[in-house]
Amino acid sequence: MWLIRINMTDRSYSVEEAPDTLETMGGRGVTSTIIHDQVPPLAHPLGPSNKLVFAPGTLTGTAAPSSGRISAGAKSPLTGGIKESNAGTAWAQHIANLGIKALVIEGQPEEKGTYWLIHLTWDDEEERPSVEFLPAEDYVGRDLFEVFPKLYERFGDRVTIAGVGVSGEYGYANSGIVYNDNNKRPSRYSGRGGLGAVMASKGVKFVIADPSGAPRREVVDRELFNQGRRKMREALGSHAITQPEGGLNMYGTAVLINILNEAGGLPTRNFSSGRFEGAAKIAGESIFEGIKDRAGEEVFNHGCSPGCIIQCSNTWLRPDGSEHVSCIEYESDWALGANCGIDSLDDIAEMIRLCNAYGFDTIETGTTIGVAMEAGVLPFGDGQGAINLIEEMGKGTPMGRILGGGTEFTGRAYGVTRVPTVKGQSMPAYEPRAVKGIGITYATSTMGADHTAGYTIAPEILAVGGDEDPLSPEGKAALSRAFQATTAFIDSIGHCLFIAFAILDIESGFEGMVEECNGLLGTNWTTDDVIKIGSEVLRKERAFNEAAGIGPAHDRVPEFMTYEPLPPHNQVFDVPKSALDSVYDEL
Amino acid sequence: MWLIRINMTDRSYSVEEAPDTLETMGGRGVTSTIIHDQVPPLAHPLGPSNKLVFAPGTLTGTAAPSSGRISAGAKSPLTGGIKESNAGTAWAQHIANLGIKALVIEGQPEEKGTYWLIHLTWDDEEERPSVEFLPAEDYVGRDLFEVFPKLYERFGDRVTIAGVGVSGEYGYANSGIVYNDNNKRPSRYSGRGGLGAVMASKGVKFVIADPSGAPRREVVDRELFNQGRRKMREALGSHAITQPEGGLNMYGTAVLINILNEAGGLPTRNFSSGRFEGAAKIAGESIFEGIKDRAGEEVFNHGCSPGCIIQCSNTWLRPDGSEHVSCIEYESDWALGANCGIDSLDDIAEMIRLCNAYGFDTIETGTTIGVAMEAGVLPFGDGQGAINLIEEMGKGTPMGRILGGGTEFTGRAYGVTRVPTVKGQSMPAYEPRAVKGIGITYATSTMGADHTAGYTIAPEILAVGGDEDPLSPEGKAALSRAFQATTAFIDSIGHCLFIAFAILDIESGFEGMVEECNGLLGTNWTTDDVIKIGSEVLRKERAFNEAAGIGPAHDRVPEFMTYEPLPPHNQVFDVPKSALDSVYDEL
Repeated sequence: MWLIRINMTDRSYSVEEAPDTLETMGGRGVTSTIIHDQVPPLAHPLGPSNKLVFAPGTLTGTAAPSSGRISAGAKSPLTGGIKESNAGTAWAQHIANLGIKALVIEGQPEEKGTYWLIHLTWDDEEERPSVEFLPAEDYVGRDLFEVFPKLYERFGDRVTIAGVGVSGEYGYANSGIVYNDNNKRPSRYSGRGGLGAVMASKGVKFVIADPSGAPRREVVDRELFNQGRRKMREALGSHAITQPEGGLNMYGTAVLINILNEAGGLPTRNFSSGRFEGAAKIAGESIFEGIKDRAGEEVFNHGCSPGCIIQCSNTWLRPDGSEHVSCIEYESDWALGANCGIDSLDDIAEMIRLCNAYGFDTIETGTTIGVAMEAGVLPFGDGQGAINLIEEMGKGTPMGRILGGGTEFTGRAYGVTRVPTVKGQSMPAYEPRAVKGIGITYATSTMGADHTAGYTIAPEILAVGGDEDPLSPEGKAALSRAFQATTAFIDSIGHCLFIAFAILDIESGFEGMVEECNGLLGTNWTTDDVIKIGSEVLRKERAFNEAAGIGPAHDRVPEFMTYEPLPPHNQVFDVPKSALDSVYDEL
Repeated sequence: MWLIRINMTDRSYSVEEAPDTLETMGGRGVTSTIIHDQVPPLAHPLGPSNKLVFAPGTLTGTAAPSSGRISAGAKSPLTGGIKESNAGTAWAQHIANLGIKALVIEGQPEEKGTYWLIHLTWDDEEERPSVEFLPAEDYVGRDLFEVFPKLYERFGDRVTIAGVGVSGEYGYANSGIVYNDNNKRPSRYSGRGGLGAVMASKGVKFVIADPSGAPRREVVDRELFNQGRRKMREALGSHAITQPEGGLNMYGTAVLINILNEAGGLPTRNFSSGRFEGAAKIAGESIFEGIKDRAGEEVFNHGCSPGCIIQCSNTWLRPDGSEHVSCIEYESDWALGANCGIDSLDDIAEMIRLCNAYGFDTIETGTTIGVAMEAGVLPFGDGQGAINLIEEMGKGTPMGRILGGGTEFTGRAYGVTRVPTVKGQSMPAYEPRAVKGIGITYATSTMGADHTAGYTIAPEILAVGGDEDPLSPEGKAALSRAFQATTAFIDSIGHCLFIAFAILDIESGFEGMVEECNGLLGTNWTTDDVIKIGSEVLRKERAFNEAAGIGPAHDRVPEFMTYEPLPPHNQVFDVPKSALDSVYDEL
């Protein structure tokens, strides 16, 4: 496969065979290896020495189910450390179809504020991908819902898109990289860590991928590969959470709202309670019912990329039945809802729509508004006020720039001490004081607070892959470590993380995952190699962070969680520092 | 002497004999020891676990010349590390006269935004200092020039004042602690590191000191003490820089403007050049001439506190001869002048007046406006625009809150990469690329970028205490280390740092300094103990910072200085990392 290196200082590029060292790697393994090896750890995240790397998962672009994932990596302007931010989109598959192992974007234009569009196509004669630079001024400063149709009009219906909204142009630490979904909407995101600002700092507004004419991906042992993907498909198809018309397909990820609320672990009003009195109104069940009411029929969810069989994405409707936004994920629903004391799905949907229009991470946006509410900028529960604040962010007003800097930044602007962040990145929708294992993941992950980095919620709350008491810190460091390593593997091979529900409970699914890889690559991995390979990725990320000045003292939850008991369980975060340190010391 | 501990959670206090471990310590030695020993390194700087410590220098309150210094210490909201911020004011002497070794302010009111005034007096019956809490609501949200006269009216002409302006109330990381000068003006500052926000977070608006009736300070060996202070007085009185009607007394600290400009080391327009075409217009010589013109006579400078014989503080006048502001220091003049491309002393004076009115550090304010100019918020050279921005800071508008967060914060809000900070604190008026030794001090100091932490400018630019090539990195790590350790000693004993000019060149002055201490305390220190004692202070500060997550990776100048050559010498900062690391490794 190919490694494309683009230098935006002079808009030159090279297309080379990817080095052997990357041969069996994909996704996060590739992005974190390149960042670790090639980015100076003390580089300014928005300066010329940072690099933005895109890498499709190992299995991405093949027939493996639910494997349309792209990893975007760079030094993060939000955390100051390494970042891999993962999304499901057909763009991932197109990049893989073009035979691209890694797309590395380096340098930056001398003049700030000049933007280009990169057009990737297949060159039949040279038998390799080809790069073209086109001016992008027409798309700058505009709503992504306005721009995406223009791009499809210009480049044709079959292309896929990665890009940045105004959030990236402003240099906000809360700025994601946007991708198209299956309906050509700007709604899939590498949301976390401010990678949109990195992309914009390189003068890149969009990367259009068109794999027309590219050859089919080579598979070393097709029989083994097919056996593996059948096992995976069977596991996904039979597990209660991932099966068709199962939990995720029916209620979406927001099926978790009622579950976490019941567990007292749904962070509410800026992490001041673990239970929200309006939870039922914004729960996945209410989303399903709301869509049914407005559509006049039951509507099951759709996939984020072709070939996904889990299909967890909804499309919320306005009262008149017209489309409002896709999609209301659990994290967005919680961040912009419960965490702001807001219980209106229409308000939440409008906020998600604005985040998609401007390029914001919905998690960071919701936690930022929560801190602004704590600071008295607006009252908790003020849906219209929250919508207005996101508009300010999109306009780049001084208030918008405060909020666009993220949750910790907003906390500093207002002198707030209850700020739910680790390494500068805000916590997602699980309260560390009520679910201790996920707190360990938040505290120790190389990514800053991140539920996807080691989703111990499975055994702690969902009784998947075990059954752990969420309030107990016992044994949770080892649990988090195992989940973090497994996750780094899954993020590298390009499966959606939601396969974990099925493969943790169904052994043949886990075997199938390894067989898919062995069939595709010709490797001889065993199931034991999963944690080994994932650990190797984590070690590189950790080493980069330490060289960037982020060490054990940063592997901590914010101080207030250690002395402020959280209702309803009235617990503090009581995981000892030695347990936190053991996660990476014993990796 | 006494250690007063005030708990602002319940407004309780204790007055105890200071422990023996602090017996021979003062100033920075005391504040850094208490912060190191008693503040959790991961405490939120504005939360209840941080402590604010005031400690007068060892010699403060005695007849030693130029020794009216107070150290304020805490975990800094600007740097996230330990902070000692040192000021010259009669308040320091009053605290010492009250027999107070350390005033430790802990906890915070449950309800944010309630403020108290602490009244310190001498209790004749109990023969110890006494503490009284009085409501301070009347003084909240107001200009310090309006409030100070009211405080003098209420508490009498003989008291002295420490306090915070609105900057502290807003929780700004750029917020100093203000003290009265000899003319009852709010113009002396523990400016750096955001300690005003720490004080305000404790609900303390002012600390009024009234030592009436307190006994005279005990001196163990008065003869030796007097011999020491005579030697010190003679050295100060005979050195060209510190003598009456000498450099500092005539032109003030801004005598350095022309000198640094000539050396190509005067940071100009946000550290994009080392030479400012308008330098002569804002130089100390022009200040002296300007005051002479408007006063109708030559006016020499005055002292910051009683007993100062250097007397380097000026009072700038309006065109009609009335007072405008005291004083235009070199750092303020440079930060708000050359660094913003502004060459009007009247504009600079107005900005300093506003900083004093609201409680801002003039250095951080000038470098912040420089970054805002770089971001295009206003053009370089726009004096009125810069004045307006400081007004916004004082009003707490969203723009004001961005700027109030400091230079690095403003850089993040606007995605600027040329941001002259180390450990979150902005660089003062010497360019590291043109004066390599001071760059090493900026990079490695426990305080963030700070010229006073190890003023290698003396040998590198002024040929005082040696004569070093400023452009060469050779031997500068050892030089910076020696200066940092000596400075920690001087900051502890309470002499103004400007005695260094005289004692570096005049050996008997150096001996006199040690004799003053030995006479006062009964110690047997030799001149060799100066670096030893100072190093001990630095080691504690360093240990605190490392536990707070600030290690060698943070001992670096910003990346742009390593690849962007600075005119006119067109040099980058080329001190090797090994040299930077050696400063503390070999301490």
